Amino acid sequence: MERPRFFEDYETGEERHTTGRTITETDFVVHAGHTGDFFPHHMDAEFMKTQPFGQRIAHGTMTFAIGIGLTASEINPHAFTYGYERLRFPKPVFIGDTIHTVLTVSAVEDDPKRPNHGRIVETCRVMNQRGEVVMACDHVLLAERRSPAA
Amino acid sequence: MERPRFFEDYETGEERHTTGRTITETDFVVHAGHTGDFFPHHMDAEFMKTQPFGQRIAHGTMTFAIGIGLTASEINPHAFTYGYERLRFPKPVFIGDTIHTVLTVSAVEDDPKRPNHGRIVETCRVMNQRGEVVMACDHVLLAERRSPAA
Amino acid sequence: MERPRFFEDYETGEERHTTGRTITETDFVVHAGHTGDFFPHHMDAEFMKTQPFGQRIAHGTMTFAIGIGLTASEINPHAFTYGYERLRFPKPVFIGDTIHTVLTVSAVEDDPKRPNHGRIVETCRVMNQRGEVVMACDHVLLAERRSPAA
Amino acid sequence: MERPRFFEDYETGEERHTTGRTITETDFVVHAGHTGDFFPHHMDAEFMKTQPFGQRIAHGTMTFAIGIGLTASEINPHAFTYGYERLRFPKPVFIGDTIHTVLTVSAVEDDPKRPNHGRIVETCRVMNQRGEVVMACDHVLLAERRSPAA
Amino acid sequence: MERPRFFEDYETGEERHTTGRTITETDFVVHAGHTGDFFPHHMDAEFMKTQPFGQRIAHGTMTFAIGIGLTASEINPHAFTYGYERLRFPKPVFIGDTIHTVLTVSAVEDDPKRPNHGRIVETCRVMNQRGEVVMACDHVLLAERRSPAA
Amino acid sequence: MERPRFFEDYETGEERHTTGRTITETDFVVHAGHTGDFFPHHMDAEFMKTQPFGQRIAHGTMTFAIGIGLTASEINPHAFTYGYERLRFPKPVFIGDTIHTVLTVSAVEDDPKRPNHGRIVETCRVMNQRGEVVMACDHVLLAERRSPAA
Repeated sequence: MERPRFFEDYETGEERHTTGRTITETDFVVHAGHTGDFFPHHMDAEFMKTQPFGQRIAHGTMTFAIGIGLTASEINPHAFTYGYERLRFPKPVFIGDTIHTVLTVSAVEDDPKRPNHGRIVETCRVMNQRGEVVMACDHVLLAERRSPAA
Repeated sequence: MERPRFFEDYETGEERHTTGRTITETDFVVHAGHTGDFFPHHMDAEFMKTQPFGQRIAHGTMTFAIGIGLTASEINPHAFTYGYERLRFPKPVFIGDTIHTVLTVSAVEDDPKRPNHGRIVETCRVMNQRGEVVMACDHVLLAERRSPAA
Repeated sequence: MERPRFFEDYETGEERHTTGRTITETDFVVHAGHTGDFFPHHMDAEFMKTQPFGQRIAHGTMTFAIGIGLTASEINPHAFTYGYERLRFPKPVFIGDTIHTVLTVSAVEDDPKRPNHGRIVETCRVMNQRGEVVMACDHVLLAERRSPAA
Repeated sequence: MERPRFFEDYETGEERHTTGRTITETDFVVHAGHTGDFFPHHMDAEFMKTQPFGQRIAHGTMTFAIGIGLTASEINPHAFTYGYERLRFPKPVFIGDTIHTVLTVSAVEDDPKRPNHGRIVETCRVMNQRGEVVMACDHVLLAERRSPAA
Repeated sequence: MERPRFFEDYETGEERHTTGRTITETDFVVHAGHTGDFFPHHMDAEFMKTQPFGQRIAHGTMTFAIGIGLTASEINPHAFTYGYERLRFPKPVFIGDTIHTVLTVSAVEDDPKRPNHGRIVETCRVMNQRGEVVMACDHVLLAERRSPAA
Repeated sequence: MERPRFFEDYETGEERHTTGRTITETDFVVHAGHTGDFFPHHMDAEFMKTQPFGQRIAHGTMTFAIGIGLTASEINPHAFTYGYERLRFPKPVFIGDTIHTVLTVSAVEDDPKRPNHGRIVETCRVMNQRGEVVMACDHVLLAERRSPAA
């Protein structure tokens, strides 16, 4: 659904929680096939029994892609992605874990080079069913201003 | 294939080029279905005819997942991902573009908190068939040392 | 396989049973990705533990698509789908259920507007391994007549 | 996103338009693989060149599944599907067509057997980029009442 | 559909033609993802422009899997696969080619080691829309005898 | 990764072991959908409970496609597939089995018809986690000679 918002409409501290999604063995197989990364950490249950985690762990790129995908329920035609910072994977995601994403606006800043836009930093935390953060990053958006910065 | 390398084996400036991969309409559809992001920028050809790019553009998360996936040909059992920094998408990826990834070791550093590991920074650039960078980021690895840092 | 049949060849009461198919977690994930419906009823095992069914339930659209798909073993070049009526889902389909479809010709009727065709109503019942009907509908076909209705 | 609505909150005539989605050759292949229906109408471009439409046409079950899937952006915890009526496919969907769905509340009715619920009929029309209706049906919902019917 | 046949029911020279199937770019991408074979011959359109074929060519394993899959319309509960011989790929399969399979019973033989079964050799030829053989092999089946060999 | 090797570089007896891959229910479903083979042996868990194996078994075409796919980590630009011989499936593959492939060069031979190439026979054995061979075949390659055969 569309939800048009200008730079001036964002406030530091606002928070959004997505629905949850159970990460399945299917997602592991689809992601390997989509990216070409068939490393045994993700694909070889026998090998992983001999490793500290004891089981297959999700690709970091999958946790990122699905974690960010979960937030794709609102389209803001006035904003676009500038980039991502400080992408980390503090805990592994296992088959059967259920994740959701929490977005928090952590900064609303002028962009010295772009008088018609401002920078929004959304801190993204992907959480599992045990309340652990399995991925964190800062999503930097550029949002149009209603009126140019002075 | 396994290619074991310790921290001491990495050298600033070393470069690796992956094989190429043509990004197809199928990849767009698979990625939308995998992540749940069906935004019209990726999925609605009619809408995109009315926009500046004139056609559907790839999800940033897909360019990241496939761009990094292309590098997954060598397994180093002595290294693991710490995180990613400065992820940017300077140009869009269109259906039919062929991408490959160039990895350059841009830093080989002590890690003050981990005497048995060192930090490797691999700058990743995903390039299209016109030689344009469509994605860039810094991949930070922790690699085991052959002998602990003094 | 082709099995050409004219309107006159259908008889009320004739019945066809398809082979069975186990509905897997993969089918749930594929269907969500194919349709864009990631509602927690289908995708969030933790949420569903708190609900009356206690587990994820199949999309109705999937039970329909696979239940009808199971019948696609005979091509009749003289008939085509007019539509479906009274589509109902009396019981949920869970991961691991095995379904098959029973088709019964429940009506063979003139079509007042189409002298060269007649209407066939096939009642479709999708059954699970416990003998329960999980989906029912009437499939209305138009079949060519060998000779036009008087 | 959740949007809780009771029976009393629905009004005849209210309308909702979904985002658009281009139906790709990939969707045809995925749907055949998902349902097991590989009939040449959907899968054999050479055969279809010899037929009136001149090209492959979408499975009806796919137009239904994706057309309904497009509406899955709002979760109403107070309503659930009772069934579908009068499902029709007035025009074929071709590879490359872009569809969206228009939902119109066409009836808001007491349900004589269920004093705590009422019946909502949503007429669904799936439209292509030429403004043609490619699928139509009535989606019947049961919605909880705020207060039981007198 | 089930079609039970004993060894004695097979005759040298009998032939079966499957329906056709257009091999799409999607099939290339799905097969790469399913098998993990992302060789540039199948996946890199730019590289293949510089090669004699001028375009991407199908994986041999895909032509085999789909070519044999096309024959899976009749289940014979009295027969099972013993193996395949002389698998060859005389011509490449390109994106957009339409293939079908021709099965010819080329031998019906006693199996000296198995008095209750006999050997059936089905020669499989996968043909494209230009009438060229793109794959050939001998499928060896063991079929139950109605009565043991003398 | 590219690893260019001429005919003269191959030696009888050399062996290569691939990484392992756990065959999942997802792979069964993907393969059925990719090939159109939905036979109950692969897809109907209830039926298979009544059969000697007690559970679903992998398609032979899948064991072949994935078993060969596992070997696709080295590209030799000087060699290409001539065909496969003696493809056998001595044991079934079940959901959850982990397979890897062992390649052994079993013959290095002149090709009387092709003075610029020689024949390499690679015996492929796909093994499960119990050390059983689940598939075997001979892969025949033609490799360019550094200098034509005398």
